[in-house]
Amino acid sequence: MKPGHSDPEGETTARLLRELGYKVEEVGVSKVYNVVVLADSKDEALMKAEEMCKRLLANPTKDNYTILVEGEE
Amino acid sequence: MKPGHSDPEGETTARLLRELGYKVEEVGVSKVYNVVVLADSKDEALMKAEEMCKRLLANPTKDNYTILVEGEE
Repeated sequence: MKPGHSDPEGETTARLLRELGYKVEEVGVSKVYNVVVLADSKDEALMKAEEMCKRLLANPTKDNYTILVEGEE
Repeated sequence: MKPGHSDPEGETTARLLRELGYKVEEVGVSKVYNVVVLADSKDEALMKAEEMCKRLLANPTKDNYTILVEGEE
């Protein structure tokens, strides 16, 4: 979530946990996409993942994201 | 997601990425709750997190989960 944007799901979760008795200060909710993609190199996989984020996965107005590439022969 | 349960969001995301031209084999979607909670020790924090998962955060029928505790003085 970019700074200045609210996280309604996190806020609701924090409230519910407090109602259950937990001393919760804050809850942030984020999503992980584990994408298995064919690529010739880790660099190519990273470039594709970056594109996927921009074209589909991330909302440019409010979402921050990080990409982690893992290899497999 | 526990074995045998489908991940409709992952399947839809995989389909959309393929329609955009990516050679995607599979997409799994999961959620991360970053909970800031007051506790006297890491052990207590872990116990509370385990409880929170059972009582609210995880769906016992279909969700697998892992817990990571980070400390702060």
